[in-house]
Amino acid sequence: MKKRIAIDMDEVIADAVEGLIRYYKEDTGIEVPRDVLYKNNKKLYQYVGDEKKVRGYLYEKGFFADLPVIENSKETVAWLHQHYEIFIVTASMEFRNSLEDKRDWMQKHFPMISWKNIVFCGDKSIIQADYMIDDHAFNLETFSGKGLLYTAPHNLNDNRFTRVDNWAEIKLFFEKELGI
Amino acid sequence: MKKRIAIDMDEVIADAVEGLIRYYKEDTGIEVPRDVLYKNNKKLYQYVGDEKKVRGYLYEKGFFADLPVIENSKETVAWLHQHYEIFIVTASMEFRNSLEDKRDWMQKHFPMISWKNIVFCGDKSIIQADYMIDDHAFNLETFSGKGLLYTAPHNLNDNRFTRVDNWAEIKLFFEKELGI
Repeated sequence: MKKRIAIDMDEVIADAVEGLIRYYKEDTGIEVPRDVLYKNNKKLYQYVGDEKKVRGYLYEKGFFADLPVIENSKETVAWLHQHYEIFIVTASMEFRNSLEDKRDWMQKHFPMISWKNIVFCGDKSIIQADYMIDDHAFNLETFSGKGLLYTAPHNLNDNRFTRVDNWAEIKLFFEKELGI
Repeated sequence: MKKRIAIDMDEVIADAVEGLIRYYKEDTGIEVPRDVLYKNNKKLYQYVGDEKKVRGYLYEKGFFADLPVIENSKETVAWLHQHYEIFIVTASMEFRNSLEDKRDWMQKHFPMISWKNIVFCGDKSIIQADYMIDDHAFNLETFSGKGLLYTAPHNLNDNRFTRVDNWAEIKLFFEKELGI
């Protein structure tokens, strides 16, 4: 039986940081360069000091529909799909307006992933899998399998999990796991 | 730590059979009495022999928004919520138009259940919990905890799981588990 990988959406396959930067620029005229967030180890709302405004974008219809795909994720998920059972698991339940957008986004960009293998949830401790790739350490803390922490501005100081900076590193990790 | 129960929506807390019977009546003028489905051990679409028409209702916006709450489920879930960690887990991902409706339905009828504890998925083998209450035996087949099969017209001949006919029986089952 194939082992199972649970892959997060935002900051792992969908570039929500880029989406927030774009919305913030359109809203305020201020462009926050992405590397400033990494240098400061902060989420955009923390950096600009306006949680209400910035998190507000996440509740807007359409925000998640237009997010760019993270580099190499499409090709690498397609490759992983040959060797593993892939589930896309996103903590989207907080955002009612994201639900249809996220499902459409998956169908558009990752049509090889069946609806059977997509999970919208809140608390990810309910997820049973062999591996989990996520940018939020709190999701990996409650996970019983092997957690991979996908680098994002808000997790740079966390050293408790195997860190992956990009999808090339994820491919290398699973090539080793598979012994190929 | 509290043990965890994963509770299905349709046919367990939300009366989708009733919804289908109503839509079919409105559509065709034919009223199929509920007990006829039980007597024949069939889903509505199997009984009337028109899967395309009947399953089509499930794809309509609004179908899941108006479903009646199954008798005693609200009170018993509230009671269980004091003793267990409750997750509502529904295989809704096939139906894009159900996603917002189901979230709204939960908020309306089960406001004590946080968005963190709601899961929209497809294949439930990804769910990790101590108990699962579901009307579909195939969801219990892959479940590693204790499965309770909630009686529905399509599962009357299945004897592999602990059967519960209604929420009064579920309460009795968990009172025994808790030794109260």
